[in-house]
Amino acid sequence: MGYDKTDELTINTIRVLAADATAHANSGHPGAPMGMAPVAHVLFNKFMRFNPKNPNWLNRDRFVLSNGHGCMLQYALLHLYGYDLTLDDLKGFRSVDSKTPGHPEAHDTPGVEVTTGPLGQGICNAVGLAMAQAHTAAVFNKPGFELINNYTYCFLGDGCLMEGVSSEACSLAGHLQLGNLIAVWDDNHISIDGDTNQAFTEDVKKRYESYGWHVVEVADGDNDLAGIEAAIKEAKSVTDKPSIIKLKTIIGFGSKNQGTHGVHGSPLKADDIKQLKEKFGFNPDKSFDVPQEAYDLCAKAASSGAAAEQEWNKLLSSYAEKYKAEADDLVRRQKGELPAGWEKSLPLYTPADPAVASRKLSETVLQKIHQALPELFGGSADLTGSNLTRWKEAVDFQPPATGLGDYSGRYVRYGVREHGMGAILNGLAAYGTILPYGGTFLNFVSYAAGAVRLSALSQQRVIWVATHDSIGLGEDGPTHQPIETLAHFRALPNCMVWRPADGNETSAAYYVALTSKHTPSILALSRQNLPQLEGSTIEKSIKGGYVLHEVEGAQVTLVSTGSEVCICIDAVKELEKKGIKARVVSIPCFEVFDAQSKDYRLSVLPDGIPSLSVEVMSTMGWERYTHEQFGLNRFGASGAYLDVYKKFEFTPEGIAKRAIATIDFWKEVPNIRSPINRAFQQII
Amino acid sequence: MGYDKTDELTINTIRVLAADATAHANSGHPGAPMGMAPVAHVLFNKFMRFNPKNPNWLNRDRFVLSNGHGCMLQYALLHLYGYDLTLDDLKGFRSVDSKTPGHPEAHDTPGVEVTTGPLGQGICNAVGLAMAQAHTAAVFNKPGFELINNYTYCFLGDGCLMEGVSSEACSLAGHLQLGNLIAVWDDNHISIDGDTNQAFTEDVKKRYESYGWHVVEVADGDNDLAGIEAAIKEAKSVTDKPSIIKLKTIIGFGSKNQGTHGVHGSPLKADDIKQLKEKFGFNPDKSFDVPQEAYDLCAKAASSGAAAEQEWNKLLSSYAEKYKAEADDLVRRQKGELPAGWEKSLPLYTPADPAVASRKLSETVLQKIHQALPELFGGSADLTGSNLTRWKEAVDFQPPATGLGDYSGRYVRYGVREHGMGAILNGLAAYGTILPYGGTFLNFVSYAAGAVRLSALSQQRVIWVATHDSIGLGEDGPTHQPIETLAHFRALPNCMVWRPADGNETSAAYYVALTSKHTPSILALSRQNLPQLEGSTIEKSIKGGYVLHEVEGAQVTLVSTGSEVCICIDAVKELEKKGIKARVVSIPCFEVFDAQSKDYRLSVLPDGIPSLSVEVMSTMGWERYTHEQFGLNRFGASGAYLDVYKKFEFTPEGIAKRAIATIDFWKEVPNIRSPINRAFQQII
Repeated sequence: MGYDKTDELTINTIRVLAADATAHANSGHPGAPMGMAPVAHVLFNKFMRFNPKNPNWLNRDRFVLSNGHGCMLQYALLHLYGYDLTLDDLKGFRSVDSKTPGHPEAHDTPGVEVTTGPLGQGICNAVGLAMAQAHTAAVFNKPGFELINNYTYCFLGDGCLMEGVSSEACSLAGHLQLGNLIAVWDDNHISIDGDTNQAFTEDVKKRYESYGWHVVEVADGDNDLAGIEAAIKEAKSVTDKPSIIKLKTIIGFGSKNQGTHGVHGSPLKADDIKQLKEKFGFNPDKSFDVPQEAYDLCAKAASSGAAAEQEWNKLLSSYAEKYKAEADDLVRRQKGELPAGWEKSLPLYTPADPAVASRKLSETVLQKIHQALPELFGGSADLTGSNLTRWKEAVDFQPPATGLGDYSGRYVRYGVREHGMGAILNGLAAYGTILPYGGTFLNFVSYAAGAVRLSALSQQRVIWVATHDSIGLGEDGPTHQPIETLAHFRALPNCMVWRPADGNETSAAYYVALTSKHTPSILALSRQNLPQLEGSTIEKSIKGGYVLHEVEGAQVTLVSTGSEVCICIDAVKELEKKGIKARVVSIPCFEVFDAQSKDYRLSVLPDGIPSLSVEVMSTMGWERYTHEQFGLNRFGASGAYLDVYKKFEFTPEGIAKRAIATIDFWKEVPNIRSPINRAFQQII
Repeated sequence: MGYDKTDELTINTIRVLAADATAHANSGHPGAPMGMAPVAHVLFNKFMRFNPKNPNWLNRDRFVLSNGHGCMLQYALLHLYGYDLTLDDLKGFRSVDSKTPGHPEAHDTPGVEVTTGPLGQGICNAVGLAMAQAHTAAVFNKPGFELINNYTYCFLGDGCLMEGVSSEACSLAGHLQLGNLIAVWDDNHISIDGDTNQAFTEDVKKRYESYGWHVVEVADGDNDLAGIEAAIKEAKSVTDKPSIIKLKTIIGFGSKNQGTHGVHGSPLKADDIKQLKEKFGFNPDKSFDVPQEAYDLCAKAASSGAAAEQEWNKLLSSYAEKYKAEADDLVRRQKGELPAGWEKSLPLYTPADPAVASRKLSETVLQKIHQALPELFGGSADLTGSNLTRWKEAVDFQPPATGLGDYSGRYVRYGVREHGMGAILNGLAAYGTILPYGGTFLNFVSYAAGAVRLSALSQQRVIWVATHDSIGLGEDGPTHQPIETLAHFRALPNCMVWRPADGNETSAAYYVALTSKHTPSILALSRQNLPQLEGSTIEKSIKGGYVLHEVEGAQVTLVSTGSEVCICIDAVKELEKKGIKARVVSIPCFEVFDAQSKDYRLSVLPDGIPSLSVEVMSTMGWERYTHEQFGLNRFGASGAYLDVYKKFEFTPEGIAKRAIATIDFWKEVPNIRSPINRAFQQII
């Protein structure tokens, strides 16, 4: 223990920097940084193991700021401890193209582990990071080689605790007995609407105990540094439970308005900053003024972190001598690269193979590749038997004490917690050694929209196995049948939405999803059986869209995805009967197709011929590729799936009818332009 | 108390009907109905007050099946008690166009209060129904006239408890001390993946106590009818807390596979049904065979409910004599009609009025109409000062004991609980006397996607005040800036997404949202100031799209929404400088514009002229209206909003440049067709 004036000075430096940066930006949240500066100081100075010169050191402790609006706290820390973040970067807080955006973004700022701000997400990411640590340790640690033993620390506020997504992940974290996870709740009794007694009067301590967490309380988080240290120590001593520290603080500590929501989301006024600096012994005429003593104190911790990494690198070297394969695997995983030749395990199909639901085709992929890809780490939100997400030999990821599996297991029972799962997947992916996927019905990926968005924004390789992808799920009815879901996620930047039509397309979807290091994927998979198509190959499918069926003198292009492609093929035959020639294009993934050259895209969707899209959900977005759209801009119906398809005319006849209408409607246009042609380039 | 063989027979009738219907449909979930038949029987026979002949009686007790997959339980009950649901309807279970879809849908089946199935939603709806009861009672009850005193009962399973959305709403329900809410947890230890010990080992009792709920336990929910009755009685006796009954049951009670997940989601096999019927004294050769004694027993409860309604109607009559205005108001509200002339309170603007953020314009609407519309019942997910959702004189909806408001208050502090709020809004709307709205940032409506979807599907008049609607929010950055959100909700059937450009359009958005009885609305509102436009009127705007600026010989149509409309107006001037004439169309709401006549739509977006859409988010969906699209198919940036707009070229110059490109690109096409022209009609 033992804290002196330099500690106090360093803490107040954080507070003053937060006040200066938010004032400079005339925007931002000074309150949380000023209130949490003491615990941040104790944590970073006494506990956190990290090397600012190598933010990617695998065994570093992870720090997650779940109350991401308080990011000036994190930026100040990163600067003080010597990460690649200058005072000028702090001055650029919340300005365009700075390294210090309004909420922490993992890919913008060295030292930021995950992108937070949307409340509740960070603590779930932390659960994912802690799970990843437990798994990586169980897989790689050997007697005498405790390679992986890092902790995950997470700060969170009242808002994070109110969000349901955190309830989901924290309940699971308790079940999983993640002793390496330590959260600090900034119990400042203030949220944007004012005192939390207006809406948030539950007993948080009791709730977290009900989840199986260890709860520690610190009554004076503003001043009691020794108490904070003791609390973190106690949390670390409890190895079979995650811990949460209930830290009473005063928001905006030091401000004239401390303890009120006035300091939560608005910069302090000039006179307030003046008195703050005077009170803390800073020169009120200077801004962004960091005392050398503060730098020096932080540098000590940083250099002991650097030394720890050196030690660790030595440990890894001797580990590599004894366990070469494991060491190579660990190094490879961190690069995000897959083992050479893994793709040979992907199943291939010919039209002679039987019709199979694409959820089942997905299961076959997982069954075939799981050995080649040891980083694959799956699960389902309590729909394992429906999503078919578990390979036969899988061991569950469970605390050994449960007798149901162990931490080396690669299959997670997420429970009915889609949003929590999505946010956990982001944490798992961010750890660096794991390639996570999670299963649910496509319709319930929407429950996790907040997390999926952050997968895309923070460029995490996360895969959703999203089965029961349309009215084709049949009897469960409109409450479960996606209509808007594909449009939603197709509109999300940097998110691949795949809807494969058969086995080869399913293999292609997995190929691209697994090899895209910086993009999440949603695989929309059918409940119903789909025939293996003539003309589909992995090579063609990985372009996102291709000509499945070509015919000389075609009068119309049918463009489709997933379970409707085979109906389009039948529609071609229907049209043939009437002497009409039609070609068929499959576009399993918009995002990937859009990335192809214009020449290629025009070869798939050429000028001079009208096109009709066919997909049993919202037509929104299809106007980008086709002249006419056949879809379902209403809710579905409960019934046997063929009855439902028939009700809405998604039959060869229904498609043929609309293909003819399309031809008729466009025949008067002399030079039909493909929608691929555009007047100018989009901003992407 | 006192239960006899007829009770047992009635309970077993429910079980056998569930087994028969799922077997007949070869689909569905027999397990929950068979396990919960006893508590359902006790509840419906001894406690629930309802008149099957008038499912809309205002003071009826509400029943919500949150574990909606067990809907055969509810359908069996509705049939037995004499709702308009025949044995043939039960035989039609899960078939197309039946009144018995795979999950309960409020608008398909008389007696179903809310649409459930997506887990966790129903219990939140129940919280909303209970809040509505508390509020309606506080407003309308008078000394000697306890008009409104119904209970809300909710069944839920493990899945509902795992979902974060239920955590949010239940925490709030505890805070709100909703003594009129009684939930029954089917504690059967089984979910789809098997035993809940795989993922769900928290102490639920303790968790609900931490929320401030009263928890009662029934150890033998399969047989102990007296115990069940005592538990419900105890729950009713606790008037200042919601109650949850932890009811231990055996899933699929009576099946050979009872107590396993084998009975959860698959019909029983023929031999299992045979033994079930034999065991329960039913003829194994008969299906859908209801003993007359069961009908008779249920009819007794139904007729006492009918008598209770008669009594209540008398009470209402004498109430009306004494409190005519209140009685008229109550009757009016239930029809969903607004008071005559309310719309005169809507603010009107001229271009001389100052520029104002549309979130502020929304606040002005609420301020002006709240007196005229007493059913308006608002709130925010802890963003009151940002969403501007609270009129000045508002009283908070709070338990009187808190001293922060009372139940007659019309403003709810939802806490940071967007999804819970969304699901609660559905319950509030379903009650019949309230017109609810809730505020959050547009980006976080996505957190509530599951609930919004059900608003649309179940046709609830629910309004989202969704502020900070684009990169125009500025400094908070990409984590908070919607890109895909409008596309997502525009693709959702029966959901109006409004993005008004100025004051008159904001008034129009409210007008349509408030008068659309069966459609939810999302009002996307700016953080930044918007000028009052020349040419905007409520009359034009309520068509969803209209010509804002017309010019003879226009060479291009600029089509825009919200905060970009005024920039388009400036772009027109920029183009004029270059001798180019441009017209401007505003489409504040796709859904409403689509409902206009084709002639009208073609007058807005005519043939013969190319068009360019301008909106600072995903272009997805705009191809339906325009030839070219200027949008943002990437994530935004953190910075002052004008800097961000400039970075992405959403400036008069940036728009003009693309308008010129559009004109150039389309000049070679002789007869430009408006995208309004389509080859065939969509299925809607």
